Amino acid sequence: MSPSAPVRDVVGLGNALVDVLSHEADAFLSDHGLTKGSMALIDADEATRLYAAMGPGVEVSGGSAANTMVGIASFGGSAAFLGRVAADELGAVFGHDIRAAGVDFVNVPAPDGPPSGRCLILVTPDAERTLNTFLGAAAEFGPEDVDPDLIASAQVTYLEGYLWDQPRAKEAFRHAAALAHGAGRRVALTLSDGFCVDRHRADFLALVEDEVDILLANEAEICALYEVDRFDDALQRVNHHCEVAALTRSAKGAVVVSGDEVHVVDAVAVPTGVVDTTGAGDLFAAGFLYGFTHGYDLGTSGRLGAVAAAEVIGHLGARPERSLADLAADLLA
Amino acid sequence: MSPSAPVRDVVGLGNALVDVLSHEADAFLSDHGLTKGSMALIDADEATRLYAAMGPGVEVSGGSAANTMVGIASFGGSAAFLGRVAADELGAVFGHDIRAAGVDFVNVPAPDGPPSGRCLILVTPDAERTLNTFLGAAAEFGPEDVDPDLIASAQVTYLEGYLWDQPRAKEAFRHAAALAHGAGRRVALTLSDGFCVDRHRADFLALVEDEVDILLANEAEICALYEVDRFDDALQRVNHHCEVAALTRSAKGAVVVSGDEVHVVDAVAVPTGVVDTTGAGDLFAAGFLYGFTHGYDLGTSGRLGAVAAAEVIGHLGARPERSLADLAADLLA
Repeated sequence: MSPSAPVRDVVGLGNALVDVLSHEADAFLSDHGLTKGSMALIDADEATRLYAAMGPGVEVSGGSAANTMVGIASFGGSAAFLGRVAADELGAVFGHDIRAAGVDFVNVPAPDGPPSGRCLILVTPDAERTLNTFLGAAAEFGPEDVDPDLIASAQVTYLEGYLWDQPRAKEAFRHAAALAHGAGRRVALTLSDGFCVDRHRADFLALVEDEVDILLANEAEICALYEVDRFDDALQRVNHHCEVAALTRSAKGAVVVSGDEVHVVDAVAVPTGVVDTTGAGDLFAAGFLYGFTHGYDLGTSGRLGAVAAAEVIGHLGARPERSLADLAADLLA
Repeated sequence: MSPSAPVRDVVGLGNALVDVLSHEADAFLSDHGLTKGSMALIDADEATRLYAAMGPGVEVSGGSAANTMVGIASFGGSAAFLGRVAADELGAVFGHDIRAAGVDFVNVPAPDGPPSGRCLILVTPDAERTLNTFLGAAAEFGPEDVDPDLIASAQVTYLEGYLWDQPRAKEAFRHAAALAHGAGRRVALTLSDGFCVDRHRADFLALVEDEVDILLANEAEICALYEVDRFDDALQRVNHHCEVAALTRSAKGAVVVSGDEVHVVDAVAVPTGVVDTTGAGDLFAAGFLYGFTHGYDLGTSGRLGAVAAAEVIGHLGARPERSLADLAADLLA
């Protein structure tokens, strides 16, 4: 493939999921044997049982990388998404919502096989969220779903660590990374979840070393990757391990590191208080990648991430409700 | 002078002061036209007036660099102090306390001239402190008070930015820095106070560029130095401007930067709650300089600073009440 100027900012690959959110007491988590703050994969039966036990829910399109692509579009960037849904109602909802948000989504819904994936999200009074994902059709996402022209069209191909949980999605991940590098583009990875890192540490370390240009992770994830307790120790390890790392620390803000360039970025205040932390990392990634692909320096890119994260944690749901371009107007000026 | 192995860790130069602390409401500050969190220089008459208006006080030996030397001694390091007191009761208290803490203090009290200096410290309910310094004898500290052998004996000569407020102390400062570099030692500077930086910005910028190996500053001070609003912008400026910078951010912890090495250090929790922030920066400097002069890496040195700062803000007064060596045993092991 002959190198040409990219026509898109970012293409994201991830699990196409509709989130079902409900507010629950902490006791609900212990009654169902759930670990607060983590993401667990559940099967169809467990999904049915848990959904029956949950209180009244709110359905919103989600999926980590999909949320990030929506965030990039909200900044005014051009984003596309690759993922698999079924030809059912939830699949239609997912497709409608992501396109309505301005993201290209070209995969045709699978006419047979398991139903569309969903993530049952329990939000406890401390605004923490506990995720239970029934992947459904998303579990069958594979290399044939990866459009080579789309990958080549984008400055950055953004991969969700969660993909590594399914063999065919892992193949799709590798295929997309190879296509991106073959087209002279960059590959970004989010580590997704501390437990996901625990499941795939050796693979993720090799990926960061060999395949990843831009790493996104939160404090728990980056500490899990290097098996250290202290953020500063992880910071020393990740520096020079990949081209750029953007590390989020909740209320402590974020640190962006690239060789001898390090930026310490403060969290942005949430005037309404923190309602639901779902999507904080996804939206930080959106702001950071928007900045990165638009020529902003790494510090400003980190601050764009902080603006986007603050917006999404101020309300229920993992996609922005206000224009991120408007919210970040001062930084983008 | 022929270079030889240093026999002391740090020698500090600063204003020799006794602190007089009282708890006051915020209204006290506005009634007396004081700016919360700042240090103001006052004359003898103002000191008398303010002292009369203050509630019952606690007298403890203080002075920024002196506090730092006491902290270094509490870690088990060897420290000396150079400063001027008068031959009066407060001068005797200052000399007794600093020696009892294990710090060498060789200056003979001045037999005549103004009385010993004091710092009237008003602690408001938010644990902030507002300093009003009557320098007295400390204002006459000059080059003749600087013992060349003592400077040459120490790995680091530590200078208080406040010295720059008085012409003769400024001479002493320059003299000590030249002696230290002449003996092949390092020079450290604390910027002391944001208003102090405003008074002497051009001089301090030149000092950092030409004379300072190790810079200590809090967020307000480093932002004042470079006239920026955002910590990250100051961080980009200070990096490569001096050999090492250790920057404190109150509850946000500290950032230590030296070329392409950057450490993000978390604040240490204060189990009893924050009582009085007086001395937080002084004691951070103590931990950092103890670590630095004992071969600990910059991250560990920063964490030693955080341990010491957390101890001193947990009680009234700017000197440690517990052994810092004990508190930091895990880090020093």
